[in-house]
Amino acid sequence: VILAVTLNPAIDVTYYLDRIVRHSGLRVDRVLERPGGKGVNVARVAASCGADVGATGLAGGHRGERLRAGLAGYRIRDEFCPIEGETRQTVNIVETGQAGLPTELREPGPAVTQAEWDRFVARFPALAAGADVVTMSGSLPPGVPAGAYATLTAATRSVSTARVIVDTGGEALRLACAAGPDLVKPNEDELLAATGASKGDRLHRVLDGASALRDLGAAAVVVSLGRSGSVAVTPDGRWRASHDAVTGGNPVGAGDALVAGLALSAAGQPMGGQPAGGWAAALSRASGLAMASVLATSAGEVDPAAAERFAAGIRIREIRGRDR
Amino acid sequence: VILAVTLNPAIDVTYYLDRIVRHSGLRVDRVLERPGGKGVNVARVAASCGADVGATGLAGGHRGERLRAGLAGYRIRDEFCPIEGETRQTVNIVETGQAGLPTELREPGPAVTQAEWDRFVARFPALAAGADVVTMSGSLPPGVPAGAYATLTAATRSVSTARVIVDTGGEALRLACAAGPDLVKPNEDELLAATGASKGDRLHRVLDGASALRDLGAAAVVVSLGRSGSVAVTPDGRWRASHDAVTGGNPVGAGDALVAGLALSAAGQPMGGQPAGGWAAALSRASGLAMASVLATSAGEVDPAAAERFAAGIRIREIRGRDR
Repeated sequence: VILAVTLNPAIDVTYYLDRIVRHSGLRVDRVLERPGGKGVNVARVAASCGADVGATGLAGGHRGERLRAGLAGYRIRDEFCPIEGETRQTVNIVETGQAGLPTELREPGPAVTQAEWDRFVARFPALAAGADVVTMSGSLPPGVPAGAYATLTAATRSVSTARVIVDTGGEALRLACAAGPDLVKPNEDELLAATGASKGDRLHRVLDGASALRDLGAAAVVVSLGRSGSVAVTPDGRWRASHDAVTGGNPVGAGDALVAGLALSAAGQPMGGQPAGGWAAALSRASGLAMASVLATSAGEVDPAAAERFAAGIRIREIRGRDR
Repeated sequence: VILAVTLNPAIDVTYYLDRIVRHSGLRVDRVLERPGGKGVNVARVAASCGADVGATGLAGGHRGERLRAGLAGYRIRDEFCPIEGETRQTVNIVETGQAGLPTELREPGPAVTQAEWDRFVARFPALAAGADVVTMSGSLPPGVPAGAYATLTAATRSVSTARVIVDTGGEALRLACAAGPDLVKPNEDELLAATGASKGDRLHRVLDGASALRDLGAAAVVVSLGRSGSVAVTPDGRWRASHDAVTGGNPVGAGDALVAGLALSAAGQPMGGQPAGGWAAALSRASGLAMASVLATSAGEVDPAAAERFAAGIRIREIRGRDR
C-alpha cells in the first residue's frame, strides 16, 4: 500500500481556449477538471500503474467534497480529513492557438486551525500503520506548522516500517530531513534554496546540496533536474539519470510522477535499504514515468506503456570519485 | 416579490494578482468568490436595495450547491432546481499592478436534459404565482430550448399579473418578445444583432431596433448603451438617460444593475402600465444603480447610497419628433 499525503490539495481545472487576450471576456472552449495537488498526482500515477493507493490530507468545503468524490474514479482510497476552509483550485489555461506552456493560476490554500491539524495528526498513525510507503508532497496550507512533515515522518516510524518519501521545499524540507525520512525529492531550485549550495558547476552544486540534506538526516536524496534528468545521492552510492529523448509537453507534474515511480520501487521491498531492484532500476522506472507524464494531457496522468518505453532509454551512470 | 431567473448561473471567482505573465505559474494573491450569473446579479442588487427577492434557475453539482448555499448571505431566497450537470464557473483576473479591465474566462454551461428542463417548467408557475416582477437574464445552457424565456413568460401570464423583464440576446430574445414581456433590456450589440437595425446614426439605429422588438411583441424596450446611458422605447413615450460623470471601474454587471433598478420600480406598481413614479423616475433609479455597480468590486454589488447620488445626476430627456 502506498499512502500519499497532500496537506494542500487542489481541484485542478484546465481551460482550453484559442488565446489569452488580457482585459477582455474570453469564452472557454473546453474544461477539464480533476483532483490535484502534488500528492494527489503521485497517487494517481501510482494507481494507474496498478498499485494499491490511499490518499490523505486536508480537504474542505464543496471543492473538498468534489475532490474526494473524484478519487474513486482513479481507484484511489479516500482517506482525507475534513476541514472547515474551502479547498483551493488551480486554473491552468492552455492556449490552443499558441505554442508554449499553460498559464497556471495558483490559489493560496485555506486556513487550517490548530484543532484541525491536531485531529489530522491524531488520525494519521492508523493510516500509516497499513502502508508500505508514505509519500508527503507539496506546500503546507496556512496554519499547518513548518514541521508538519517531520511530525508525520516520526508518526510513521512509531507505527510501521513504511518507507517515507518527502517532496517539498524551504523550511518544511529542512525540518523534514531532521526526522530521518528514507528519501527526499527536491527539485534543483528547492535544493539550492534549502541548502545554500552555490559553489562549482551544476553537478557539484547539486551533489553538495544533496549531501547537505543527508547531513540534516535524510537517508537518500533524489534531485529532479527537469530535462536534464535527476541525481540520486544514497547510502549505497550516487547515480545520475539522463536521457536523449526530446519531448515537447507539459513538465508540470513530472516531479510527482518521479516520486510515484520511486514509491512503487520502495513498495516492492518495504524492509530493506535499497528499493527493489536497486537504485539504478528505481531511477529508470521513475524517470520513465516522469517523461511519460510530460507527454500526458495533465499532471498526474501517465501512459504506463509509454513510461516503460521511456524507462528502457534512460541512461544511468554511477558517480564516483572524490566528490563528497 | 422579485423573482430572478438565471438558467445558466455561475460561481464567480475573482483572482487578484500583480500581472498576467502568459506561459508561467502565477500565484494568486487574493480570491473572491460569490454566486453569479446575470440573474443572480440582478437578485443581489435588488436585495441590497431592500427588496424581497427569490432566485431560481438550474444549478447542479458541488458548484451548484455552493452557489445555492451562498444566496442566504445576500438575503435571497433559494428557489433553484437541481440538475445533474455541474454549474459553470467564471474566473475574473484583476491585475492589481496594471490599469485596464479584468480578464474574464467564461466556462460553457452544463448540459441540461429534456427531463430536467420539463421539471423546471412544471415547477415554475408556483414560483411565478407569488411574484410581482419576474426577471429572466442571460444565456441559455446547452439543452435548454431557445424559446425558454417565451415559455416562462407565458407561464407567468397564466398564473399572475407579475411584470416580466427579459435580458438576453439572439434567438432567445426574439422568441421571448413574441410572448409579450413587459420589458426587454438588450444592450446595443444584442439589439442590433437581433434586429439587424443598421441605418442612420447611433440613436436612430437604436430606436429602429427597439421598435422592431416592440413590433415582435415586447411592450417596452430599454437599451443599455454602456457609458452613453440608455434609451427607453415604451407605450408611454421614449426617453434617453445619460450622465456626465466620469467613472472608472468595471462595467461587467452594470446591465444587471439596470435591470434590478427597473424591476424595483416595476415592483412598486405591479398592476399598471408605467412603473411606479413613471418611466423617467424608473430610468433615473436604474441608471444610478448601473453607475454604482461600475464602482463596486464585482458584478452584482452596489452601494445604495452611491446609487442614489448618481441617480440624482442622471439626465432624462424625452425623445420627440418624427422618429418612429
